[in-house]
Order: sequence, then structure tokens, then C-alpha cells
Amino acid sequence: MPEFFNVLPPQEALALLLDLLPERPATGAGVVETVDALGRVVAAEIPATESLPAFPRSTMDGYSVRAADTYGASDGLPAWFTLVGEVPMGCAPDVSLEVGEAVVAYTGGMLAGNADAVVMVEHTQAIDAHTIEVMRPVAPGENVAQPGEDVGADEMVLPAGHVIRPQDVGALLALGIEQIKVSARPRVGILSMGDEVVHPGATPGPGQVRDINTYTVAGQVAAAGGTAVPLGLVGDDYEEQLVAARQGLAQSDMLVLSAGSSVSARDRTVDIVAELGEPGPLVHGLALRPGKPAIVGLCDGKPVIGLPGNPVSAMVVSSLLLRPTVYRLMGCVHPPPPVERAAILAQDIPSAAGREDYVPVRLVGGRNGMVKAHPVWGKSGFIFTLVRADGLVRVPADAGGIYAGESVQVREL
Amino acid sequence: MPEFFNVLPPQEALALLLDLLPERPATGAGVVETVDALGRVVAAEIPATESLPAFPRSTMDGYSVRAADTYGASDGLPAWFTLVGEVPMGCAPDVSLEVGEAVVAYTGGMLAGNADAVVMVEHTQAIDAHTIEVMRPVAPGENVAQPGEDVGADEMVLPAGHVIRPQDVGALLALGIEQIKVSARPRVGILSMGDEVVHPGATPGPGQVRDINTYTVAGQVAAAGGTAVPLGLVGDDYEEQLVAARQGLAQSDMLVLSAGSSVSARDRTVDIVAELGEPGPLVHGLALRPGKPAIVGLCDGKPVIGLPGNPVSAMVVSSLLLRPTVYRLMGCVHPPPPVERAAILAQDIPSAAGREDYVPVRLVGGRNGMVKAHPVWGKSGFIFTLVRADGLVRVPADAGGIYAGESVQVREL
Repeated sequence: MPEFFNVLPPQEALALLLDLLPERPATGAGVVETVDALGRVVAAEIPATESLPAFPRSTMDGYSVRAADTYGASDGLPAWFTLVGEVPMGCAPDVSLEVGEAVVAYTGGMLAGNADAVVMVEHTQAIDAHTIEVMRPVAPGENVAQPGEDVGADEMVLPAGHVIRPQDVGALLALGIEQIKVSARPRVGILSMGDEVVHPGATPGPGQVRDINTYTVAGQVAAAGGTAVPLGLVGDDYEEQLVAARQGLAQSDMLVLSAGSSVSARDRTVDIVAELGEPGPLVHGLALRPGKPAIVGLCDGKPVIGLPGNPVSAMVVSSLLLRPTVYRLMGCVHPPPPVERAAILAQDIPSAAGREDYVPVRLVGGRNGMVKAHPVWGKSGFIFTLVRADGLVRVPADAGGIYAGESVQVREL
Repeated sequence: MPEFFNVLPPQEALALLLDLLPERPATGAGVVETVDALGRVVAAEIPATESLPAFPRSTMDGYSVRAADTYGASDGLPAWFTLVGEVPMGCAPDVSLEVGEAVVAYTGGMLAGNADAVVMVEHTQAIDAHTIEVMRPVAPGENVAQPGEDVGADEMVLPAGHVIRPQDVGALLALGIEQIKVSARPRVGILSMGDEVVHPGATPGPGQVRDINTYTVAGQVAAAGGTAVPLGLVGDDYEEQLVAARQGLAQSDMLVLSAGSSVSARDRTVDIVAELGEPGPLVHGLALRPGKPAIVGLCDGKPVIGLPGNPVSAMVVSSLLLRPTVYRLMGCVHPPPPVERAAILAQDIPSAAGREDYVPVRLVGGRNGMVKAHPVWGKSGFIFTLVRADGLVRVPADAGGIYAGESVQVREL
């Protein structure tokens, strides 16, 4: 039986691939409505088109004044002001201040003409309908947001490669930017291989199992912002696999081949990757458990990942390799890191040094108390170990395991 | 000017609301394709309909044997076996074992008739085309996954209230469950109020600003699995606000009123919440910064949240209150916790005791090195403080601040 050569740590394998991909989006770009842009990747730097705030804006409810008129004011010796109006929300002032005059100001509203500061209402006292006492001095600009202080018209709003969050949508719309250019979603073809695999809608005969990997990987592709392109099933015939993989790659920006990546006689995925384009396989075998029999390749500019058929291994490898690759295809060099939660390990996890282990754990514990991570043991490839788990604990390659009681980060798939 | 009464910690305010909501989905349920169910909430417990594996399955590449025939085998004294065939993937065996016979077995494949264990290929040596040496004994069941060992036909696959992840999709399809019943997405009406607020497509006049909160909140609603229903803009006229809020609530499962929740004269949102239904406002004012002037209410069974108009406060309150409420409306009592990342605080954060502070921070640091959280300072309500930030650091109510160098969790909005 052939051996794995050049077994690499997953991060090194990933780096080998990403270093060969362009930093710019490989998949083109398109214009979308800003309100529909959540999770999309900015294709080209977006400049601010105007300043925010657009006008000097009160940050408090109170009175706009000339700061000089408040100097020396104190509880014992308040300054008296004559109220000469208000500036309603959404309106320009229709009044300008003379010495000793004040105008009602609302949070977010404009100041009176000549005003350069706002006195908080809490530092004033109404004497009658037209007079207030001010108990504290304000400096010029106090309680006022200046034009451009939030963002300047010459500033960058969002860099290329940025993944749009709710606050980014808000900021873009605050500037009136209703459409933006985003990277196209990479099309990720997924081909599931193996004589034993049948469609989920079929009733498996003896020795047959339903296809899972197409759909778990599709979920991970979608979560990373790509478009999954299920390519169907193909048996273990090499020529049929090659034809299906070629056709799949032609219509995709990236290809995932599920199963057939181990080293047994029937598994010739690495040969397929070699035939699909140059340079072909970059890595065959990861220092990883589960997920050792994985393939990382690049075929004429398109990433090709070979996943173990084992559904647990497939999800772990996909989580480590596919997600950052999908982001990179959109021009996102620093994708959002995977979701992790801190916990205390509840049981020892033994591990062999020299490879990274990912162990499914279930989180138990109160919201305020410390969360404990209980390993979910199960035979290799049981999808329900992942269903019963809340995430994975990584045992680093240089550790012989992790002891109960240690702090761990639990990573979502 | 009126005062805030009963200022509550955000978690207590949320609990007051959630305790009044039913644990079952409040919004009905519908059937979706399992492949489209990512992020949806299971409406009713899903039982397994069959066992997995469906047949005794080899977990290794090797040979299926009768375990008894391997007893005593060792490197020095291997057991000899006659190879009498193979069980191809996806096939039932067409051969049954006699004493001293072995059959080629593949990972995931069936065993020969009479076989009760699998010898790993690594523990064998081929002598000729029909003979192998076995160097280690196997126990009955070794390297074999038994029927029902992954999941039994009588087990629960997923409980009601569970949020569907990629591995859940895989597990359901492995059982041939192609459709499931999920809670309907709650419709969350969002009404933005204030004379100064204009549509993002408009050019603001003096003193006017574009509506942000409708869209930032809509993003948060969508992220939690709800359907945002933008209800448009209404000025500061109380009667118009009341009419718009009534109409909005009638067509929604939950209502968000943006702005008008402070205590200045023009802010009468709490009165609106009182008029919308019973019991009306539950909480007016949170021990929270930013976000103190928030309202939590329940009107004839529908949650109503009043958000501060300040876009930063609105997002913080929405993140704390709206997200878990949306999940609860789908019958999800334990929603996925917010995404948090561990970091080391780079600068002191001062804070007043007695309220929770959420301070925007930017994360800086290597993937392997320790990530540092740098506070992003800025005047209240600057949306770009959130754009420049990667998340929020929470300063607990009982702390007077956090010192540089301390470990913090940085929460995404």
C-alpha cells in the first residue's frame, strides 16, 4: 500500500496554497445594494464621499451658548442666560446669539448661530420661561460634535477585502452610499465519490450509505460566503471520476473532491488532482486527526481540495482549509477567525505528539459560571459525534494531550 | 425633565421579557428542505427513523476475519489466513468465512459473512496472492462499527429549539430526512422616528441625518434568523408615531422603535409602548452605557423594544436584547452565544461602577501571538467608532474599569 509523503501541518498546507493565489479577488466583482451586502467582501476600497457629522451637532440635550458667556459660572455664582428660542430637530437655526443668550438644543440637533458650545440641561436651572441659570462653564466645542469628526470626506470607509458587518451597512448608508462593489461569491464545486454512496433521497442497499459530505461542505461554503455547486455522485471508476472532476472544475472557481483521498488502492484522487491542471497536488496528507488523508492542490489557478470520505474528517479538514480559501478567492486576506469559546476541559484528552488533534466536545455550564468542555467520544466517522458536540478542542502538535482542568478554546465547525 | 425609573441591568431586563414569552415558538412553523435549513430552529423534536450505521461496517482498511482465528497471533508467531475474496464498497458480501479464512475489507464497507472483526492492513503481511500473515490478535467487534452505534432508531436526532448547523444537515440526510419542520422566522418591524431623520437615498438638509438604525438593526435581526420589516420613517409627532407603531406591530411578531426613547420632552416612546397593548413597558432605562435610554416592553404578547436613536447605543442594546428575543420567538431558549474572542487589553478602560460599559476595541496582533484589544475612543453616537472596531469589551457593573494587560473577551456586534 502506498505511503503518505510530506505530511504537513494544516496551517502550512494552507499557506502553501494561499501563497499561490492572488491577493485580489479571483472571481470578479459585482454591484449590490448596501442593505443586501451583509457578509459580502468589499471588492475595491470605498472612500467617504462626504463628512460626518455634516454640521456641528449637539451631543447633549441642553442649551447652545457662546462658551465665553459661561466663564466663571458655578453653583454659587451661576451665569444668567436669556432664552431666545430653540433649534428643532432636523432644522437649521433661525436665531443667532447675542451676549448672554441661549437657545434650546437637542441631542443630535444643530446649534444656534454664533453658538460654539452646549450646556447640558443637568447643569442648568430654569428661572422662568425666558431665563435659565448655568451652573458650570463650558469650553468652546464642549458637547458639540464637529463636522468630519466621525469620518472625514477624504477618509477611507472600508478597505478592499473587508467583510461587511451590520455597522458597516449603517456607516455606508449614513454617507448615502446605497450600492457597493463586492467580490463575486466563489463557486465551489463539490463532487462526492465512492461506489457505496447514494443520494440522501435513496434507500441505501446493503453496504450503501447516503451522501453527507456534499451537504456539510455546502453548508461550510455558504457560511464562508461562497456558492456551493453540488456536482452529484460518482462511483469508484477512475475515468468517470476524472471526467466528472474536469467538468466540475470547468464550471467552478474551486473544487472539492470528497472521499477517495486515502491511500488505499481504490483511492486515486491524488492522480485526478495531478491530471486536472498545473501544478496539481501540493500536499498529500496532513499532520492532523481526524483528516490525515487530505489533498491540497492547485490546478491551473483553481484550488482543489481532496477530503477524506469520513464525514467527521471531511468537516474538520473543510473547516481548516476550505473556509480561508473561499475568503481568499474573494480577496479577503484576513478572514474573520473561526468562532471559538473559552471553556475548562472536563476530562483528559490524550493525544499523540506530532499531529494536531481535534476532539469534539460538548459545552455544559451556566451563563455566568465557567463553561466545561466534555469530550464526545465515538468511533471515527460518526457524524453524530459532531451533532452531539458544540465544537472542537485542538490539541497542538507539540502536546501529548490536554489535562482536565486546563483552559481550552472550543472551535465551532 | 422626567427621570429614568427602575434602571435595570440588561440581563435582568431581558429576563423580565423572556419570562413572559412562551417557550414554544410564537410564530408558527413550516416545512423546509433539510439542505436549506442552516440557521433555522427545529420546531418539534426530530426522532431518528433508522439506525446508523445500518450494517456492521469496517472502520479500517484490512481484512475481515473471525476474531477467534487470530488469538495468539504475534510478530514472532503470525497466524496464517487464506484470502477468499473481497467485499467491494457498497456491496453485500458474497462470501462466508470458514476457519482460517479472511476477506479484504475497506473502510466503511461490509464484512464477510461469519466475520466479526477486522484486522488492520498494517498488522498483516501478504505472503502470496491467496495468503496473508496476521501479526496481532483482534477481539470480536474490533475495528467494526456496529449497527446503531452512531445513532439508534429510537434516539432523538435534534431537540425542539435547536439551531441547525452544517453537521446537523449532514446527520439528517444520513438518515434520509430530507425535510424538517422549523419555526417560522419572526417578523421584526423596525420603525425609525425623529424629525431629523431622512431616507439614506435622500440628501440631508441642514440639521438632518440619514436613517442608519433601520439597517443596522435589520442586519442584526437577519443574523439572528428573523425577517426584518422596515416600517419607514416617522417624525416626532406623537399621534403619527402611534399610528405607525400600531400598524407596524399588527403586521409583525415583534416591534423595534428607534429613537425617541430618551427622557427629553420630545421622546414619548414609552407612552407609545404603553398604548400599544398590555402590559406595555416593563423596563425604561438600562444600567448600561451606551444604551441607557432603552425600553423593554410586551404589548399583547408581542415584544416591543425601544432603542436610543444614537446608532452606537442602538446597536449595543439591540445586540443584548433583540438577538435573544428573536431566538426565543422561534422557540430557542438557549441561543448560540454571541461571538467572542479572547484578547489582552492594551489600554486602561475607566468606567463608573453601577452600570455595564461596552467599549469598542480594535484587535491587533498575530495569529499565533496574543491578540491585543485597543479601545477605539470617540464621541457618543459615532457609527465609525464601530466600523473601526472589531468588537466590544464589557466592563461589568461591579468594576471600576479594566486595566491594560488584563484578559478580556471581545464580543462581536
